[in-house]
Order: sequence, then structure tokens, then C-alpha cells
Amino acid sequence: MKKLRVGIEGGAGFAGGELIRLLLGHPRVEIAAATSATFPGQPVFLAHPNLRGRTDLAFARKLDYGSLDCLFLAGGHGDAMGDVPAILRAAGPRLRVIDLSGDFRLKDPALYPRWYTREHKAPEYLKKFAYGLVELNRGEIRRSRLIANPGCFATATALALGPLARGGARGVVSVTAVTGSSGSGASPSAITHHPTRHSNLRAYKPFVHQHIPEIEQVLERLGGGRNLRVSLVPVSGPFARGIYAVCQLDLPKGWTEAKVVGLYRDAYAGSAFVRLTPEPPSLNAVAGSNHCDVFVAVADGRIAVISAIDNLVKGASGQAVQNLNVMMGWDETLGLSFAGTYP
Amino acid sequence: MKKLRVGIEGGAGFAGGELIRLLLGHPRVEIAAATSATFPGQPVFLAHPNLRGRTDLAFARKLDYGSLDCLFLAGGHGDAMGDVPAILRAAGPRLRVIDLSGDFRLKDPALYPRWYTREHKAPEYLKKFAYGLVELNRGEIRRSRLIANPGCFATATALALGPLARGGARGVVSVTAVTGSSGSGASPSAITHHPTRHSNLRAYKPFVHQHIPEIEQVLERLGGGRNLRVSLVPVSGPFARGIYAVCQLDLPKGWTEAKVVGLYRDAYAGSAFVRLTPEPPSLNAVAGSNHCDVFVAVADGRIAVISAIDNLVKGASGQAVQNLNVMMGWDETLGLSFAGTYP
Amino acid sequence: MKKLRVGIEGGAGFAGGELIRLLLGHPRVEIAAATSATFPGQPVFLAHPNLRGRTDLAFARKLDYGSLDCLFLAGGHGDAMGDVPAILRAAGPRLRVIDLSGDFRLKDPALYPRWYTREHKAPEYLKKFAYGLVELNRGEIRRSRLIANPGCFATATALALGPLARGGARGVVSVTAVTGSSGSGASPSAITHHPTRHSNLRAYKPFVHQHIPEIEQVLERLGGGRNLRVSLVPVSGPFARGIYAVCQLDLPKGWTEAKVVGLYRDAYAGSAFVRLTPEPPSLNAVAGSNHCDVFVAVADGRIAVISAIDNLVKGASGQAVQNLNVMMGWDETLGLSFAGTYP
Amino acid sequence: MKKLRVGIEGGAGFAGGELIRLLLGHPRVEIAAATSATFPGQPVFLAHPNLRGRTDLAFARKLDYGSLDCLFLAGGHGDAMGDVPAILRAAGPRLRVIDLSGDFRLKDPALYPRWYTREHKAPEYLKKFAYGLVELNRGEIRRSRLIANPGCFATATALALGPLARGGARGVVSVTAVTGSSGSGASPSAITHHPTRHSNLRAYKPFVHQHIPEIEQVLERLGGGRNLRVSLVPVSGPFARGIYAVCQLDLPKGWTEAKVVGLYRDAYAGSAFVRLTPEPPSLNAVAGSNHCDVFVAVADGRIAVISAIDNLVKGASGQAVQNLNVMMGWDETLGLSFAGTYP
Repeated sequence: MKKLRVGIEGGAGFAGGELIRLLLGHPRVEIAAATSATFPGQPVFLAHPNLRGRTDLAFARKLDYGSLDCLFLAGGHGDAMGDVPAILRAAGPRLRVIDLSGDFRLKDPALYPRWYTREHKAPEYLKKFAYGLVELNRGEIRRSRLIANPGCFATATALALGPLARGGARGVVSVTAVTGSSGSGASPSAITHHPTRHSNLRAYKPFVHQHIPEIEQVLERLGGGRNLRVSLVPVSGPFARGIYAVCQLDLPKGWTEAKVVGLYRDAYAGSAFVRLTPEPPSLNAVAGSNHCDVFVAVADGRIAVISAIDNLVKGASGQAVQNLNVMMGWDETLGLSFAGTYP
Repeated sequence: MKKLRVGIEGGAGFAGGELIRLLLGHPRVEIAAATSATFPGQPVFLAHPNLRGRTDLAFARKLDYGSLDCLFLAGGHGDAMGDVPAILRAAGPRLRVIDLSGDFRLKDPALYPRWYTREHKAPEYLKKFAYGLVELNRGEIRRSRLIANPGCFATATALALGPLARGGARGVVSVTAVTGSSGSGASPSAITHHPTRHSNLRAYKPFVHQHIPEIEQVLERLGGGRNLRVSLVPVSGPFARGIYAVCQLDLPKGWTEAKVVGLYRDAYAGSAFVRLTPEPPSLNAVAGSNHCDVFVAVADGRIAVISAIDNLVKGASGQAVQNLNVMMGWDETLGLSFAGTYP
Repeated sequence: MKKLRVGIEGGAGFAGGELIRLLLGHPRVEIAAATSATFPGQPVFLAHPNLRGRTDLAFARKLDYGSLDCLFLAGGHGDAMGDVPAILRAAGPRLRVIDLSGDFRLKDPALYPRWYTREHKAPEYLKKFAYGLVELNRGEIRRSRLIANPGCFATATALALGPLARGGARGVVSVTAVTGSSGSGASPSAITHHPTRHSNLRAYKPFVHQHIPEIEQVLERLGGGRNLRVSLVPVSGPFARGIYAVCQLDLPKGWTEAKVVGLYRDAYAGSAFVRLTPEPPSLNAVAGSNHCDVFVAVADGRIAVISAIDNLVKGASGQAVQNLNVMMGWDETLGLSFAGTYP
Repeated sequence: MKKLRVGIEGGAGFAGGELIRLLLGHPRVEIAAATSATFPGQPVFLAHPNLRGRTDLAFARKLDYGSLDCLFLAGGHGDAMGDVPAILRAAGPRLRVIDLSGDFRLKDPALYPRWYTREHKAPEYLKKFAYGLVELNRGEIRRSRLIANPGCFATATALALGPLARGGARGVVSVTAVTGSSGSGASPSAITHHPTRHSNLRAYKPFVHQHIPEIEQVLERLGGGRNLRVSLVPVSGPFARGIYAVCQLDLPKGWTEAKVVGLYRDAYAGSAFVRLTPEPPSLNAVAGSNHCDVFVAVADGRIAVISAIDNLVKGASGQAVQNLNVMMGWDETLGLSFAGTYP
């Protein structure tokens, strides 16, 4: 069986490394090349020491787009919107693209200046990209060749709230979501300086994180209107991997606990990766895997939904592979069918 | 100057050790004795290795209550309510008591069976204990000899929300609060097992933590009615010290950001320990100190209040010393006038 | 192809959970049953939440040894020596056994009272078990049905020193080896209490750890005599997974750096799992994988050898699977051919 | 009583922040000014959020050396050697200087090119600086106005080995010493990037760390010759504060355990900060304090000495304050008489 030839733009970052790790174990994919501006010509294990001895791949300077079946864009936010039009002109419309940045996630170009502080450079492409949150958008992904891979906070929160949106819930949802440091990428910075990140918690961008419109867009589509508003306070946590999202809202009038639980059971009944848990989830039960654990509680007129993912797997590269599988019509779990490590 | 003779019941736990550490540096206090059922007759540094060489104190089996000026109760929840009546009979009403457990925090005895799963054994004392959240109840503490020292989640959350309550805010507050593992005490258990606590987050007791009625009692008193309801999801965090509370609510109709900020400035203007911060606080900026850092943001009709404390200092033993200072009419900061370590 | 039926005694511990995780991904193995005294009849994901949704397996109370092709013993030290004779009588000599405890690692029964504080209960079996450090004892393992799976400190240290022993080095090796908390098992105890394990280092059993004779036995066999003596100080580290061993010794007279490096290249030339690194290894480059990274430096008449493993994989369950593969004559990497997660 | 006016050059780094924290609690010292090139004119709490509300001090651009009684140099390695001559010319010989860098620690200028990769710019000052390891060099410090404050690895290792050197021990000492990330300073870099430092251990500069000649110089002086050689492998650890040094050597011929223990008792009998422990020390028992815990074991012809310090306190700023106290003829413990936090 001929393997699918994939390329990775931005292979030296954490999402790039995770993509390489996952794709090396994928039975139907061959990594044709992965680029790095920092390590051109060097073995990938220089950036990702876990891959030493597991691949002979060296970083390329550039990709030959025409030779690829699928391209993963794992560079920084803002790059993809500039590059995609030219890439598609060069490669032709046959090329599948999965963009891990935020550049093609929002349908409305007017949102970019506000949430990403830049005008969108290729607004005509926004409608062409399917939003790659498989469990809530599988049909569109299956029909697409261009995928906007969701953000990590967005994945955890939208999976937590999607069933409620679909059920017609309304109101404001208070979300506190804690992220691991790998979400800030492979380049050192003040917010990932170990002495001050260690044993610390620090909220940032309260109410103004760029994943808010992304989550609301998902919920609006599922609910048929802007019924749920997301009030998000992100928090930097003292661990490397994971997003832990705690969501609270009022139980809609007339709803029962049974109805709420039913919405979640229905939404994720056939899902290989979303697991409903009878107790609040543990972040370390999903770390290293493509799973999202979701817990829902109803009491005294309130709903709490708590979700946990690995930000680099289900929140980035694992989900990208899952999108590839769905796009290709393959078993959705190919190359992703493993548990994380625990403890 | 004759020093105040204090005793500590339960000196081998984490709160007990922190009390000893703090009181050793208090200029007007002498530790007469500290008890431990586990280490009777042994030097305190066996339980608290940081105290090696800093004191010759050994754990006592029992205290001579009559010889004490002040007694700190740092044992488990449920012990104090059984012991206090006999202690006060033995020692006479002159003895000051600061109870670090939850046994005398709630005014309404009917709340104990629900939130602490036990009938209260000395309900006639509940009204005699002042609630020791100094910044919001200084006057009553000054006039009292019996103090119920607040819980750690309650301290962080009530300091975050007190100014809003006093200002007349109404509604439901969504609180997600993350706690360090030292809050679970010095005895090993499944929830503090390092392999699974490390790098993990895990919510527990959503909506049913026993600090909820304690917080609501404070807010009710400040607001003159049950105007604010606390919807709390506690989370176990992968660090040893701290409570980080993220509170969200709707901005009351007609309120402005300026009004909200003014409430906080007024509430904490003269406070030595509560610090208003222009950015969300860092937990490690308060760790090791009696400070509580509070940040408030208003945007799009929402309020976020974020507070950070060290659960063993401001959330337990430091606050107990602060209560002692206020009761005695001393400078509130005696023995507490230091910064924490950073980083 | 008919799969090998394996059973796991002690499936609820960390090594047991890791075995189940690994064997679920092994193409030629079927887990017939795993026992737990704590969770009999319960799904395995109650003990190992990472396995939720990945298997329907529930813990058994007992194993039917006669129905198994291979038995993994993952219970506590001291159990296996009591059970193995009866198990083999019941199952017959056809049963393969891989014991993860220390019970059959030492050839000399006289060592047990000293290092394990108990008389050996089945000394006649000590010679029948092959020591399962594959890279240094592959031949014997291939011919055996009974395997003593090495200890975690022993694996890291023996792989670090084996090439030197084989080359005829003599002298005392100073070893400082730091272990993650998962090495202490799934039951909470004072040494794994998160508040005091977090951010801490603490040496224990200096010069008297029970893995010392195990390491020296390997080295003696490779060197043809008691040429290398291991002086080991184990240290408890503030992370969940890993052993990091730093070994130092005098460069033998007449030896050169080239000779030392050559010994390592020769020893591990065909090894899939031992990776020689040009810089000191990072623990997180091997975590989650069956790799052992080894670095060697020579300067000023001294040799430093530094090795890193995941204590639960190469230091326990991964090595057990590797032993199974070798015993069965399969590709040694079956079910183990993956990188760990990084970061 | 008039307070001593001190200035701090490099007040925004971790050592600078710790100096400010400690000196704010020192009864006989007033901080005249602290400089920062990054935060000139800004309040010190911008760099050190633990100090918010504890001081009104703002960072200065420059110091007026002539107005100071004592100057702490807490800038980077290599700055002090260039600045000290001009500073002393400007301020006159009355100014006391405590340099926290490595610039004046080595007596032999020829060592600088090799270990610090630069020629020394003011070699004539090397003999004028006293080496500020108080417990082993108190007399010289008392008579000096210029102090070279020891390095963190050097402090932990020299305190561990000093008594042996003084007793005449000979041989090679194998040292593995693990450091917290704060030792790398306040500027983010690849080695302090949280995602990869977290849960990791990584050795670096084996046998070639610049603290080696510093330790050997101390030991040579105590032993009256180059009797002990230090073979050091430093390791980066996943915690913020601390140095944990494990030292091993052969028991000298004819020595007994009693003799070894006696050497340590004699050396540290009157010491307020060095504590001999009957079990291997815990790093978290010294964190936040100026203590050094030292444990010594003798078995089978080997000696293990294990020491633990807080790298920013006893390993840097606390020791600098201790040096000031000794220089001034004050009680050595002024401003340092507190336990660290535990847990």
C-alpha cells in the first residue's frame, strides 16, 4: 500500500515534534520532509531528543509542495495566512492542508484585528477551511481538503460545552482554564522561565484571550445562534502538558440533570477519544494521549463541566492527525490508538 | 516585657509547624508548649526539619491550659468542638483561644450536619467565636477572646469578594480555586501521593466544599443579606503551597469599572497584607508570606476577581498570628512583617 | 496468528498498569487476566485512569496459571519467592515467568538476608532464573523460561557500567542516582507525600541499597571477577518517572578516551534501546519510552558515565516486555517501538 | 543607632532581589539604593513581586559610591573585575565591598582564562579579597573590607568537605551536585525553559565547572596542600531553589568513623547555620533559610558526605549578609535568624 506523503512546516517546535512523533507511528503515512529555520540540515533529534534513534529524518530548509499529498503547517500564528495562497497556487488544489495556527479558524475576517491584532491577509480562504474539531464537526471535515486545527483552550472548552450548545442552552459560561507551559512553544520567554513558572499559577488575558471567539463560533453553530457566551480566564500552570477547563453556568430553566447527562451521552456516544467520567477528570489521565476526559455535574440550579486534554496531542498535533484520518476516510484512530502514560 | 505564653494543640501538623515557625520570630510571644500525639517527648524538628537548631522545644503530650495566655488549636476538624468547653472550664474564661479548624466558623449549627457531616457538639459556643478574617471583621476580633480562624479557600475567596458584597453586588459568583497539596495536611493519602499529584490537576467536591457556607456567611454579613451566592469548584494543584481563586460574576446593572475599583481601594486602603495588583497575581509572589494579592478586572459586563494566598500562612497560621495581634491590641503585623521568597 | 496468552499478578500497581498499557499495544500478545487484591472485579481503569476506554479488562481475583503462556509477576518484593514453586507445579514447566520483583535477581541466596532482610524461600530457583538485562545478557534470556527482571537503579547503573566491566576496568565507582516517585509504588507513604517530595531532594540508604549486589553481580559476570565495586547513594527526586545515574571512577591506567568510547560503541552497536549521546542525557528524552540514554566522558584521568531511563518502562515493565520478546524469539522491539513524549 | 548605608549593584536579578528581601529585615542596615539597567526608576516590586508593599524603594540608574558604607555587587560574572578598581578609587578605601560574582574568588589569576574563559582585568585585587565562606574562613573575613562571596556549588561542596580537608584527608572526591533553576538567573534561556526543565534532570559541564578550582582552593588552604581533588558533575534539577551535593571518597587509611564524625562536630560546633543531621538532609528543610545541612556516613571503607543549601540564601545573598555581619563585628546571624518554610 502506498503511503501518504506528508510535509511539516515548522517541525522544530513542540507541535512539530509531536507531529513527527505521532506520524512515525502512523501506518499509512510517510513523512517526506519537515522544515526548520533553526536547524536546517540537522537531524530532528537535535530539537526533539526523544526521537534519537527513532528516525533518520533531518530538517529541510524548504518543502517541495508539489510532491506532497498533505501539508501540516506548524509554524507561528500569522505565517499561514500569508503563505497558504502561494502554497496552493504552487501545489495545485489537490494538496491537503492542515493548519495548526489560528489563522483560518475564525470565519469572520473582522474578528482578526480585534483578537489577533492584525488584518487577515487571505480572508477569501476563511470559508474554505473546515474547523477541525472532529467530534463536533466530522461531516464538514470529511468533505474538506483544508483544515483549521483548533486551539488548545478552544478544544477543551468547546468539547466541554458543545453538547449544551446543541441542546439549546443559553447564558454566560464562566470558564477558568489552566494550561501547561508547552503551550507557549519551544522558545524561552519570561512566562516560561522555570524559576518563576515552577510552583506558580498566574492568570493572563482575562476575558480577552483569542480562543474566545473561536469557542463561541463553534457553540453558535451547534446552537443555531449566539446563545452561549464564553467568559474565559486563562491561567498559566506549573506543568508541561495539559489544558484543564472548569466551566460553570446556570442550569437552563426546566432542564433536569437527566437531560444534561443525556446530551453528553448522545454527543460522545460513538467517540473514540472523548471519555465521559463519573468523577472530575485528572489531567494526568489524558497526558500523552489524544483523549479528552469530560465530567458534568448538576446541583442547585448550576452546571459544572470539567474537561482535560493534552494540549500538544488532542489540543494540537494529535487532533491534526485525527483530522487527516477523517479527511482521508480512514479509521479516525489510526496512529492515535494508545493510552497516555500514568502516572 | 513579659511575653505572652501560648500553647499549640496539634503542633506536628503543617499548620502547627508553621505556627511554631512564625511564633519563634514573634517579639511578644513565648511558646510554652506544643503537643503531638505522634511525637510526644521528641524535638519539634523531627516533624519540622526546617526548625532544627532554631528551637529546643520538644513536643508535649498535654498542655497545662491554666498556665497559658492563649491557646492555638491546630488539630483536625471535629476535635475542637469536643474539647473547647472542657478547656475553658479548666482554664477559666481568661484563656484566649484561636481555633484553626472549621469547628466554630459557622454561626448556624444546622449547617454542620450538611457541610461537615456531623452534629455540632457545642452549638452554644458558635456565637461566642469571632470569625477571624481580620481585614473584613477587625472590630469584632478586637473585642473577642475566642477566634474561629478562617479556612484557606474561604480566606482567598472572601477577600476577593468582600468588597463587592459590601458594595451591594448580587448574583452568582463562579469560583474556581486551586489549592496546593499542603492543604491536605501532613498525613499521606491517595490525593497527596506524589506520582499522581505531580503535574496533575483534579477538581473535587464541585459545588459541595465545606468552605462554601463559610464564604457566604461572610458575604451575607457584609452585604446585609444573601445577595451573593458562591458556586465553587475546588481543584487540587501540583504545588505545595497556595490557594489561587478565580472568581467571575456579572457586573451589577448600573455599576462602572470605577465603582468596582473604588470598592477594593476603600476596603483594603489601610491593609498591611492585602495588596491590590494591576495585573493578575502570581501565586509565588505571596508564597511564604501573610499577603493576599487581589486583582480585579471589569470588561463587557463581567467582573473577574483573582486572589492568591499562601494556604499555610494567610490561609492558616499567619492569619492565626494576625488574629492574636489584633485581639491583643498589638500592631497587626508583629511577627508577620516579611516578604515571601521569590522565586 | 494465535496470540500469546499472558497473565499479570499485581495488575493495580504502577508496574502492573504500565504492563497493561504496553501489552495492549503489543501485536502478538493477549492479556488473559490481571489480578488485584484491592480492585477485584473492577475495571482496570479504576486503578489506571489512562486506560479508560482502551480496554474492557476487569481485575481478576486469581489467575488460572494452567491457561497461560506467560506470567508476569508485578507484586511486591517477597511474594514471588513464596509463590513461584507452587505456580510452576500447578502450571507445569511450560509456563514462562517474568518476575519484576527482586526475588530471583541474586544468584547467591546468602545475599538475601543482608540486602532484603529475609531468608530466601526458594533458593533452588535462583540459578534457574536468567537475569533479564537484555543488552548485557541476551543469550541466556533467549534460552530461558524464567526471567528475573532487573531493578530500576540496577538497569540504569549496569547499562552505564557494563561496557567498562567487560573491558576489564577495576576500582570503585561512585554512583549518585536520582529516582522518580513512581518507583515507590502506588501506595501512599511518607516518602511520597507530595508536599514534602515536591521541590525536594533527599538521599536514602547510602551504600546499602539492595540494588548494589545486583549491579555488582552483573559487572562481575561481564568482567570475569569482582573488579568493579559500586558505591551507590540513591536520591529521591521531585518528579514522577525516571532514574538518572551519575557514575564516576578513575580512568584505568593505560586506558585512553578512545578505548573507553570504543567499549561503549561495541557494547551497544546493535541495540535498539540504548542510545549513546554526545552530551549528558536529559531524563525527559527517555521518559515514557524503553530507551536508555548513555553518555560517557573522559578527562584528567577520570571517567564519568551518565545514564537515564524511565523507571517504569526500561526500569520495569518495558524491560519485562523486551524480555518476553527475546524469550519468544520475536523482534526485541515488538510493542516497544515508540518514542517517549517530549517535553 | 545610625544604620549602615548599603548599595546594591544589580538589584533586579534573583540574588539582588534576595539581598533586598533580607536587608529589609536587617536591624542595622538601610538600603540606600539598588540599581537595575532594565528597570531604572521603577519600583523594585516590578522585578520582585514578593516585595510589593514591603518597600518604597525604586531602582536607581547609578550608585553614589561615596555615600555608601558597603556595596554589594550582584551583577554578572566579569563585571566586578572591571568595575572594582574605579569604584574604590571613587569611594576611597573606606568602602566595604561584597562581590557575589566569581571575579575575585580565585587567588591565582592564571586560573581565570581556563575556568572563566577570560583574562582577569584586576589581578592585583585577587589577594585583597577575603574568601567569604564564613564557617571556614571567619578570621580573615573579620579583618577584611573586600569579600568574594562564594559560589553556590562551592558553598555546598566546601562545607561538606572542609572538615575532611582540615583533618588531612587525601584523594579524589566524586561529587554529584544538583542545582535549582534560580541558579541560572532571572533571564530566560534554553536551560531554564519550563517545559523542558520541568520533571527533568540533565548533567552539564562534567569535570569542568568553574566552581571546581574554587572548592579546591578552599580545601587546599584547610588541608595545607593539594590533598583532595574534586571531581564534580553538576546537574540541573527541576526545582527553583537549592543545591544538593552528594560527595563520595575512600576512607583514608587508619581513619575510623568516630574520627570522621569528630571532625565535623569540631568544625561546626559553634556554627549557627551549619546543622549536622543524623539522616541524609532534605533540600526543603533548608530552602528559604541560610542553613546548610550536612550529613556524613562511613561504611565499608567509604565516606559519603551530603550537604544541602538554598542557592540564593546560603549560596548567595544570605551568605553575603552573613559576611557583612562578620566584617562589621556584629552577631553573625543578624537578619538571618529564621527558618525556611517547610513544606
